[in-house]
Amino acid sequence: MLYQGIRDLPIVSPHGHCDPAWFARNTAFSNPADLLVKPDHYVFRMLYSQGIPLEDLGVGVAGQEADPRKVFHIFAAHWHLFLGTPSRVWIEYVMRETMGIKAELSAETADAVYDQISERLAQDTYRPRALFERFNIEVLATTDAALDDLAYHVQINESGWQGRVIPTFRPDGVLDGSDPVFATNLAELETQTGCDLGSYDGYLMALRARRVFFVEMGATATDHGVKVLQTEWLSDPNIIYQRLKTGTGTVQDAQRFYGHMLIEMAQMSIEDGLTMQIHAGACRNTNAVVMNRFGRDMGADIPIAVDWARGMDALLNRVGNNADLRILLFTLDESTYARELAPMAGHWPCLRIGPPWWFHDSPAGIERYFNQVVETAGYYNLAGFNDDTRAFMSIPARHDVWRRGVALHLAGQIDKGYFGRSDAEHLAQLLAVELARDAYGLIP
Amino acid sequence: MLYQGIRDLPIVSPHGHCDPAWFARNTAFSNPADLLVKPDHYVFRMLYSQGIPLEDLGVGVAGQEADPRKVFHIFAAHWHLFLGTPSRVWIEYVMRETMGIKAELSAETADAVYDQISERLAQDTYRPRALFERFNIEVLATTDAALDDLAYHVQINESGWQGRVIPTFRPDGVLDGSDPVFATNLAELETQTGCDLGSYDGYLMALRARRVFFVEMGATATDHGVKVLQTEWLSDPNIIYQRLKTGTGTVQDAQRFYGHMLIEMAQMSIEDGLTMQIHAGACRNTNAVVMNRFGRDMGADIPIAVDWARGMDALLNRVGNNADLRILLFTLDESTYARELAPMAGHWPCLRIGPPWWFHDSPAGIERYFNQVVETAGYYNLAGFNDDTRAFMSIPARHDVWRRGVALHLAGQIDKGYFGRSDAEHLAQLLAVELARDAYGLIP
Amino acid sequence: MLYQGIRDLPIVSPHGHCDPAWFARNTAFSNPADLLVKPDHYVFRMLYSQGIPLEDLGVGVAGQEADPRKVFHIFAAHWHLFLGTPSRVWIEYVMRETMGIKAELSAETADAVYDQISERLAQDTYRPRALFERFNIEVLATTDAALDDLAYHVQINESGWQGRVIPTFRPDGVLDGSDPVFATNLAELETQTGCDLGSYDGYLMALRARRVFFVEMGATATDHGVKVLQTEWLSDPNIIYQRLKTGTGTVQDAQRFYGHMLIEMAQMSIEDGLTMQIHAGACRNTNAVVMNRFGRDMGADIPIAVDWARGMDALLNRVGNNADLRILLFTLDESTYARELAPMAGHWPCLRIGPPWWFHDSPAGIERYFNQVVETAGYYNLAGFNDDTRAFMSIPARHDVWRRGVALHLAGQIDKGYFGRSDAEHLAQLLAVELARDAYGLIP
Repeated sequence: MLYQGIRDLPIVSPHGHCDPAWFARNTAFSNPADLLVKPDHYVFRMLYSQGIPLEDLGVGVAGQEADPRKVFHIFAAHWHLFLGTPSRVWIEYVMRETMGIKAELSAETADAVYDQISERLAQDTYRPRALFERFNIEVLATTDAALDDLAYHVQINESGWQGRVIPTFRPDGVLDGSDPVFATNLAELETQTGCDLGSYDGYLMALRARRVFFVEMGATATDHGVKVLQTEWLSDPNIIYQRLKTGTGTVQDAQRFYGHMLIEMAQMSIEDGLTMQIHAGACRNTNAVVMNRFGRDMGADIPIAVDWARGMDALLNRVGNNADLRILLFTLDESTYARELAPMAGHWPCLRIGPPWWFHDSPAGIERYFNQVVETAGYYNLAGFNDDTRAFMSIPARHDVWRRGVALHLAGQIDKGYFGRSDAEHLAQLLAVELARDAYGLIP
Repeated sequence: MLYQGIRDLPIVSPHGHCDPAWFARNTAFSNPADLLVKPDHYVFRMLYSQGIPLEDLGVGVAGQEADPRKVFHIFAAHWHLFLGTPSRVWIEYVMRETMGIKAELSAETADAVYDQISERLAQDTYRPRALFERFNIEVLATTDAALDDLAYHVQINESGWQGRVIPTFRPDGVLDGSDPVFATNLAELETQTGCDLGSYDGYLMALRARRVFFVEMGATATDHGVKVLQTEWLSDPNIIYQRLKTGTGTVQDAQRFYGHMLIEMAQMSIEDGLTMQIHAGACRNTNAVVMNRFGRDMGADIPIAVDWARGMDALLNRVGNNADLRILLFTLDESTYARELAPMAGHWPCLRIGPPWWFHDSPAGIERYFNQVVETAGYYNLAGFNDDTRAFMSIPARHDVWRRGVALHLAGQIDKGYFGRSDAEHLAQLLAVELARDAYGLIP
Repeated sequence: MLYQGIRDLPIVSPHGHCDPAWFARNTAFSNPADLLVKPDHYVFRMLYSQGIPLEDLGVGVAGQEADPRKVFHIFAAHWHLFLGTPSRVWIEYVMRETMGIKAELSAETADAVYDQISERLAQDTYRPRALFERFNIEVLATTDAALDDLAYHVQINESGWQGRVIPTFRPDGVLDGSDPVFATNLAELETQTGCDLGSYDGYLMALRARRVFFVEMGATATDHGVKVLQTEWLSDPNIIYQRLKTGTGTVQDAQRFYGHMLIEMAQMSIEDGLTMQIHAGACRNTNAVVMNRFGRDMGADIPIAVDWARGMDALLNRVGNNADLRILLFTLDESTYARELAPMAGHWPCLRIGPPWWFHDSPAGIERYFNQVVETAGYYNLAGFNDDTRAFMSIPARHDVWRRGVALHLAGQIDKGYFGRSDAEHLAQLLAVELARDAYGLIP
């Protein structure tokens, strides 16, 4: 079976949102609710959609007082809501494979399961570093603001522990002039780098300095999140820069400037070799009430349609023919898989298609992805897999779902006569680990 | 087999376009053409697309003189056009299960089949109420203009017959300022309710009064049809209201006012508990020649892309966190299943996803629906099934296609290891009847 | 097996881009690189996407000096890039079925295979006319600019050879006012036809004259390529015509005029019976560097979303109810299959849906096409198959992939109970050849 050949390969996790503090401090995870419910927006958004208040789930500031045992009980009592979702697949995997728990979640078993998980978490073998090793993680990339001091990464590096946890350069906060704290961020950037941010040239210099720091700390990639994709090469960016810096820019100024800065980032990637990730098409924090009471990233992010062909035009026409540059595109708009992403990645030397992202990182989502990208882009223009998670415990589960999906897809291709077993076995290795290593420049 | 467990459950039909006069009068259906061809836009649109004039099919005013036997003959002679369509599946079911006719339709059998159906229709057991009972319909909702006097519903209620036929409040005619008869409709609304429509407040009062009347008549839901979805909370709606009322509003006024009124309707739903249905994205009556000669709803309605995320933003941010409110979304743009509807329904407490609508209410459409909504929205954020038909005879056939689709989907999920047989059996019950009852507040 | 029943039917190729010179001159194809690599944008775009310079592949002016043996070696050495793509399926078919070569392509076998193919090409049985006959091509349509003198078609007709090679009228160059050589083209059109192009009426007369010439030369269809679809009936087209003719029109003028001319073309099709093809939604030549160095059609064409419902509105409302008119719609935006094209073709008498186009002409693309169009449009509103290729050698391979896809689809329909074997066998014949003959008015 193709799956057997890749099941136990090391995990390459080149993009995600784990907290580096876990591995720096290596303290035990506190309790089952903090582990499985509170940090998992897939989980609490589903519960919220069925009328359960977020405060009862211990989420955000408003939920700080919630009793973790009660939170876990609510979760277990509503386990049926997750039927048919990847969350259920992932959590079943964690319970069975990582925790060794046999009971099925329900209101009746909630307390016993809570105790069992708690008992595991108290053991040394369930501390972050031990799990990292047990999970056979070759490398784990975190996602870090451009202004982050990467203190935890430093601490990990200096600790002597061999686990490879690297940062990713995420500069949205210093590129997006519509961010309310943009000016504050620039002031901080000036302080950190010593560059003179009075001019656009000094601003570029400061960004370069931060990239150098991230590279020194092991980063191999940048990451950019954008709602409406629109790139443009400004002939005099300093004009808009000055307006945005002084808070007198318009929404359109910010949009145009961000689109220009994406091109600058791509040009810097040519210089320093950082792989560039573009995640486009998410409306963030669409529920104002939830945003105000609980904060960002509370399950109210909703995808919209994306126009990749026209949105990337200016950027690609400036840097796209460079075969040493790597730009990975991630979409939440599956109608662009076959219509735009596969044709674009099948032409431009710099492009690779990222794996199914977020809501589409699921068994059926993986099947749709392969069905719609491979015929035009082939396999070698794909970027392998990302787990993209802040739920550390679910990482092996997510890679397992991907590897099963890869095996199913390749078995189907053999059936259809596309190629034989030997090619399929080679492609399985590629899709499980090698394409990700290659796309992110991660030498094992 | 999962299908066996749900095949004979009662039919819950919470949204459709049957004529309540049928059940009020309970007179026999007139002839096979009036039963199977003339009221079924799926049927005559296909025939028209292959060059058959609508007048030859007895459709609309221009077709009044057509001989029903000849109409049926044309239909039977072109039966091959329906190969691969759900219309063929539905009509075969009606012929076989409801009519007990074994012959296959063709030019050769047309006359004999016509006579056989006619002979059935003359029997008391084929009158509307008898069929309603034979079909095991638990409840049937019609769709009725806000100004409708619901006389047939009154007649049904007073007749002593036990069949449950309830109205649905469809206020488009009194909300849409671009409707040529908007002003006339408001005048009629004033007369009916006795409210003073000189001001926006009186207008709201009148709408509330009509909703009260519909609720008294058994309604549990409203229905709203919209081409381009766009909601907005107006700070002073009276200004636009006055312009629209006096016929001096612009197209944009009408669009903005309609978007505002959707929010008002949602707010009234919080008060009176009516489930709100939004059917978005159909360009109605796109063929001007057909519209002028034959009237509305003549098969020339064509879907367009819908932007649910931004279109619902103002409405959801005003009422969406209310867990007692039910808003059901219906789309003709399948690219929004996974991109927008499932993520939205998987977050907002008020939202449920309506079943595959219109052109997508078909075996492959049902499969695509489950494939694309379940992983993100789960099953409990779905609204079960609607037949949404004006072809009464086809109701059992349509529910049967859905139930087969449900069984196939769930069997596939078992195969993929998503869950076991017992969960599947429970979900089958939910999808066949219980979710529809719940979404529409229909206690059996 | 359904496939066996259609595998050996004659090939009807009503739309494609073969060079008529091949059949006029009937000289041997020069070498394997010229045959399989240089003219196939599917092939060289994939190689380019993985960093291989186009000049090394012998492409365009910049590649003229490339040694064909080296070009072929690069191609063979990168054969793994094509795993999972239809290009690989097609080329394997050509190698095996047409060339009788057993070796698999690789760096190791490149030279030997090159020699084997070269040896075949030197034989008379591998000349264009012999292959045309061996391929059992009933008719092959080329695509020709409105100003083309069709000299090669004349030569073929006068040669006494029985192969049917017909032109297709492609007037974009004389309709699109944004084309830099539009004015030059009009001058040439005036010279060719002797019409006075000083007025819009004379311009229409000249277009009619060219259509007459193409019809005399055997054409049965026109073809129109459009990026953003938008039709509009201008009340006074002469105003814009004059501006465009003198180079003083705006981009918007050109767009509106083109949309108007599509309607004029449809009206002329009613007169002269030419089937009208509309290929919409491709951004052409999006890579400026490649365009400047290598020319047009170098693999940088990228699809975008299309709005068929609103884009075709003016045209359809002017001519769409004509049942003798044939308009075939081709999309690169698969989200429009079920949302727009199938509903439109299932209503308007003039419309047929073209087969999966370009990036979607593939096994999975064909499956998605049937899955999404048949339930609403049926089979009789489809236009059969086009190979749409400039890679002559691949024609049998492409029709074979389609026929296998047809057989698989129909077998699936039988399994699902949609219809029985006898209907399926009939539909297979229709889809393999008869619908194409009918849509293009090609009497065998």
